[in-house]
Amino acid sequence: MFASLEDTIARAAALVRPPRKTRTVPLPEAGGEVLASDIAADRNIPPFPRAAMDGFAVVWTGREDQVPYRVIGTVNPGTRWSGKCESGDCIKIMTGAAVPPPFDTVIQVERSQTGADGSVRFTEKARSGQNIAPEGNDARRGEVLIPAGTVLFPRHVATLAAVGQWEIPVFERPTVTILPTGSELKEPWEAAEGPMIRNSNAHFVRAALARLGAREVHYGGIVTDDPKMIRERIREGLADDFLILSGGVSEGEVDVVPQCLADCGVEKILHKVAVRPGKPLYIGRGPTGTVVFGLPGNPVAVMVHMAMLVKPLFLKASGAREFLPKPVYLPLAGEASNRSVGKKFTPARILSKGGKSVVAEVPSNGSGDFISALRAEGVFEIPAGVSRLSPGDLVGFHPVWGDLFREEE
Amino acid sequence: MFASLEDTIARAAALVRPPRKTRTVPLPEAGGEVLASDIAADRNIPPFPRAAMDGFAVVWTGREDQVPYRVIGTVNPGTRWSGKCESGDCIKIMTGAAVPPPFDTVIQVERSQTGADGSVRFTEKARSGQNIAPEGNDARRGEVLIPAGTVLFPRHVATLAAVGQWEIPVFERPTVTILPTGSELKEPWEAAEGPMIRNSNAHFVRAALARLGAREVHYGGIVTDDPKMIRERIREGLADDFLILSGGVSEGEVDVVPQCLADCGVEKILHKVAVRPGKPLYIGRGPTGTVVFGLPGNPVAVMVHMAMLVKPLFLKASGAREFLPKPVYLPLAGEASNRSVGKKFTPARILSKGGKSVVAEVPSNGSGDFISALRAEGVFEIPAGVSRLSPGDLVGFHPVWGDLFREEE
Repeated sequence: MFASLEDTIARAAALVRPPRKTRTVPLPEAGGEVLASDIAADRNIPPFPRAAMDGFAVVWTGREDQVPYRVIGTVNPGTRWSGKCESGDCIKIMTGAAVPPPFDTVIQVERSQTGADGSVRFTEKARSGQNIAPEGNDARRGEVLIPAGTVLFPRHVATLAAVGQWEIPVFERPTVTILPTGSELKEPWEAAEGPMIRNSNAHFVRAALARLGAREVHYGGIVTDDPKMIRERIREGLADDFLILSGGVSEGEVDVVPQCLADCGVEKILHKVAVRPGKPLYIGRGPTGTVVFGLPGNPVAVMVHMAMLVKPLFLKASGAREFLPKPVYLPLAGEASNRSVGKKFTPARILSKGGKSVVAEVPSNGSGDFISALRAEGVFEIPAGVSRLSPGDLVGFHPVWGDLFREEE
Repeated sequence: MFASLEDTIARAAALVRPPRKTRTVPLPEAGGEVLASDIAADRNIPPFPRAAMDGFAVVWTGREDQVPYRVIGTVNPGTRWSGKCESGDCIKIMTGAAVPPPFDTVIQVERSQTGADGSVRFTEKARSGQNIAPEGNDARRGEVLIPAGTVLFPRHVATLAAVGQWEIPVFERPTVTILPTGSELKEPWEAAEGPMIRNSNAHFVRAALARLGAREVHYGGIVTDDPKMIRERIREGLADDFLILSGGVSEGEVDVVPQCLADCGVEKILHKVAVRPGKPLYIGRGPTGTVVFGLPGNPVAVMVHMAMLVKPLFLKASGAREFLPKPVYLPLAGEASNRSVGKKFTPARILSKGGKSVVAEVPSNGSGDFISALRAEGVFEIPAGVSRLSPGDLVGFHPVWGDLFREEE
């Protein structure tokens, strides 16, 4: 029986334990981490009525263009002003400064003319309160700004800094063992001749986990298709939160991984997923709760499963509240077909030209063709049951394989 | 005079020196780095005719469904087979194994029936060469697969591993000094009261640079609006490849930064850009070639300039061949307006529902409202000269502020 991807994610997500530990990192190291506590505003934001323009603060009358104003002071950012203000008085004020009472309106410097005597005339009348961001307008003191479970990007770091957070509570990351299997594999630093090929999957998975901020990843090298060796290394890996195997999970004679996992007490949750590429996917649960992924040996399938399944679950296990990838629906450049019984993911890139974007399938010799994946920025999905798509049809594209750079011309 | 953003990028890019040094990193640390040498295939890819399915290798006749076949051997991935083969012979073969001559066609195990005597009958006739990826089909030995100047993502790491690269040549990164200015600023670990606010811009810039793989970032803390102090710290910063100041660049009385830069021998390239938010942008060139950015104090403007200008130029200075952000054109959810003379960038997020995506402006109190930016996944642009957009109009969205996560329901 084939499970749908949605069902697979749900069943695997049910295995994921929430993070048990937190740690504290200084703000400059918080990027990419998952916030472990709600962060609230320590003051109103803005903390005072803030001048949004360089100009003059006045007490609004609606007749600012009719009389000259006397300039009785200057307020710069970071300074206070207190004085007595009479009708017809104004103060010079700079962007970011606190507008002192009783002033309630700021007129831009561009709308003023300074006379020989130092008095100021305004070329327009003002709207009451213009060019001032009122105190507490953006957020109130005590309001939660960033909830626990948020994956922190630089935009979050700006707010953390602004509300006086320096030691940031973040969740501890799940530990991972990566275990590539296959008698045909050689490491990148080894010679590979004849029927041997290089192990690329494990190094891809390592790189993808590093990009997610994984902290403890155990990589012990290739195991051949020898059951005794595989069992030994599985037992070691079951000490971690995640055990990610690659290869050995299809139904060939040498695909001994599922049996070895069973021998080590791993409970099989599912073994086939209705996704192409990457049908022979194994998910299981170790005796102490380890989430076990048996990825296929096919490199493009590994890239798809990593983005659509393993990354989301790794983020969930890191405490993330939102962790599933969101597709961007864009028109297809060409035709596309899905001869699979399930969902199909196709490596593709976005072409943006003349104010329009389309999703272009990357020419490929199939899912063993990892060279073609170099050109792809992500994958688009064709749902189960849809066999044919035409140019212009909207498809869900996931820009999950890297940044979008404008093509050099 | 206001420069367009395109002109600004071009003029700033002309200041950027190509990286002078390279270094070598082990493959697991190569993610995010910029490749310094072309990487070629060390073998044909695939290196042998590779079985793409589990099944039986035959010599194609087109009459495979008419006679029983004798199974004369088994080939697993990583093993060789050599033997004598007669008409009507086949070998059992597993996905990923090298198909030995004279066999030239693989029939899937699902299309076979094994008899009591061990012989095999096929339920269909074959297409010549089916289920075999021919040697060299994806790439030829010596072919450049990843050119120098590529920003390395995990998909590149897979290919680097596959072609036997372990010590990866990458470009050295530019060094950066970050210099926040403003008498109103306090650090996140300090109390901020009255007219004082926290320095968030410098910590945002640090986080953004960390995400880009910056290695040497000098942060010496806030300087107040005192020219002597500012000049001293500018002189220190001019030892680096990039000097990024924030605050003090608009035309208010206390915006002393441009004058201090001039005093330190920095040549002004431009001082105003036709971009909202963030018009008062300063770009200059230090005496020894330092690229100097004077960012405005406005936090949302800093986020925009960081994504659209500083990040691309930092990547160019890191040796990247492609470094400009590519927009994704999507329909607008609501109306949008641009009252600026130049290009406008608006914080927004993608809403994907019912097979369609739209770009939704994030409600905001203006460009000082960094809290609203928390909800944004990036910015969309309204070109100069376009004052009004309607729902459904296509806009160029840049998903540059973080990953796209499906919203929790």
